[in-house]
Amino acid sequence: MKNILIIGCGLIGSSILRSIQKNKSSKKIYVFEKSKFNISKIKKLKLKCTITNDLKNIIPKMDLLIFCTPISQYEPIILKINKFLRPETIITDVGSTKEEILKLINKRLKKNISWVSSHPISGSEVSGPEFGDENLFLNKWCILIKDKKTNKKHLNTLHKFWKKIGSKVIIMDKAKHDAIFSMTSHLPHLIAYNLVKTATDFENKKKYEIIKFSAGGLRDFSRIAASNEIMWRDIFFSNKKNILKTIDIFINNLNSFKTDIKSRNSKNLIKKLINTKKVRKKIISLKQDINKPDFGR
Amino acid sequence: MKNILIIGCGLIGSSILRSIQKNKSSKKIYVFEKSKFNISKIKKLKLKCTITNDLKNIIPKMDLLIFCTPISQYEPIILKINKFLRPETIITDVGSTKEEILKLINKRLKKNISWVSSHPISGSEVSGPEFGDENLFLNKWCILIKDKKTNKKHLNTLHKFWKKIGSKVIIMDKAKHDAIFSMTSHLPHLIAYNLVKTATDFENKKKYEIIKFSAGGLRDFSRIAASNEIMWRDIFFSNKKNILKTIDIFINNLNSFKTDIKSRNSKNLIKKLINTKKVRKKIISLKQDINKPDFGR
Repeated sequence: MKNILIIGCGLIGSSILRSIQKNKSSKKIYVFEKSKFNISKIKKLKLKCTITNDLKNIIPKMDLLIFCTPISQYEPIILKINKFLRPETIITDVGSTKEEILKLINKRLKKNISWVSSHPISGSEVSGPEFGDENLFLNKWCILIKDKKTNKKHLNTLHKFWKKIGSKVIIMDKAKHDAIFSMTSHLPHLIAYNLVKTATDFENKKKYEIIKFSAGGLRDFSRIAASNEIMWRDIFFSNKKNILKTIDIFINNLNSFKTDIKSRNSKNLIKKLINTKKVRKKIISLKQDINKPDFGR
Repeated sequence: MKNILIIGCGLIGSSILRSIQKNKSSKKIYVFEKSKFNISKIKKLKLKCTITNDLKNIIPKMDLLIFCTPISQYEPIILKINKFLRPETIITDVGSTKEEILKLINKRLKKNISWVSSHPISGSEVSGPEFGDENLFLNKWCILIKDKKTNKKHLNTLHKFWKKIGSKVIIMDKAKHDAIFSMTSHLPHLIAYNLVKTATDFENKKKYEIIKFSAGGLRDFSRIAASNEIMWRDIFFSNKKNILKTIDIFINNLNSFKTDIKSRNSKNLIKKLINTKKVRKKIISLKQDINKPDFGR
């Protein structure tokens, strides 16, 4: 590819930028970034790219556009760039939810322009270009969304693009994607936020120092609950349907644990605790984590 | 101290053993361990101790006994050793809950024998003497329980003992202890177990591969949910009163998040997400975690 435009250059955008450079997947990389603070950081980091506001002249030259902004930014940007888009340009995004986004894109994107959605399963609780990493996608899943409307040629090119920067690519339909990630990512984040909120409420109510003793479990949740609030608000809203369902299953299960504890039902409780241990083994065998104990940091 | 007996030599027991040796806090260490598997591992690891079954002859010689078994083992062991105990011997334990344990101890322990309860805030999701570490208690909190009945002399000696192996000692009453740790440790573990159970139920119902994509959040919970099931059953049962309360606050808060998501209430949601971020900063400033992003392992 000759020219790539990264729209939004935070943790993910700047990691894509660095990965492209490492793998020489593009001759030139342009960056469109709204935040002045991020722009100053990109300059300070001396990331090799051309920061631009001149969408009118830049976009028609692009082979690939990658949306790396929070989901709520897609609509205003699409409306802004629609008139400069050409059917040949591949457009993708890295958003964590797909059904609602694609509905909006279909509604707002200029006719005859194709959009193939991506979701690299990588990230952290931190935000900003200073945390980007050229190896962020290495051996990590990247989901590509395919449906009846998908432009096969663009899908194939994107497949190669993600593979070249190290991802293991899987093609999936948007409904399946949103169901899976509501459970593996969106609910866990919501639960982490909720646990930290519960601890704060408890501290305020009891007047005990809770946070001081958080090393025994709460600490790990607090790390996840430190993730970017705009990004996560957008995810929770745009995968509402699935998240509301998983919350209900979660509360049902928690009530069942509550019943076991209340009635001191050892048999039921032990059965549940042993089964979750098996899942951990599966996660390690599927290389989603390493088998190394964690004693805190 | 001349002689110390460690009762139960798993992760915590063997870490105490190693710490004592490192700091030369005792001339001789005895180990009473029920599990043949653990005994064979202790021998293989060549941990410097005398493994014994001869409680009748050993216990009267001891300066300090440390219970490091799951809580449900306390009662049968107390009944077994009662007749060998002398008032001079300091007895402690490392259990994660205190009110119910101390009620049981008061009921079962021979008259005129004192027990001062400890809780070192250290551990991991793994069990067994092979995971023990001589630095496990270094700069970690150790709570000592004090009430009207507490033997001050024994309390002072124990204070010095934990300090010598690196702990930061805090004295607390049992009710406060159980309330705090229900929130910072017991509820987070239950929530982790519950999240993994919810993911498994979801996978079975949807027939989607969920676990394969667990890197985006579920992974971290699964590590916590791999902890020892006997130990955690005992903790959940013996801190029932507080845990049931924290479950209720947690469910109330989760329902409030659900309402915000359902009604797309951005203002409320963002406020909640920003507040949890502040807690994270506090946790880092209190040195309960380090300020280093986690990109998975």
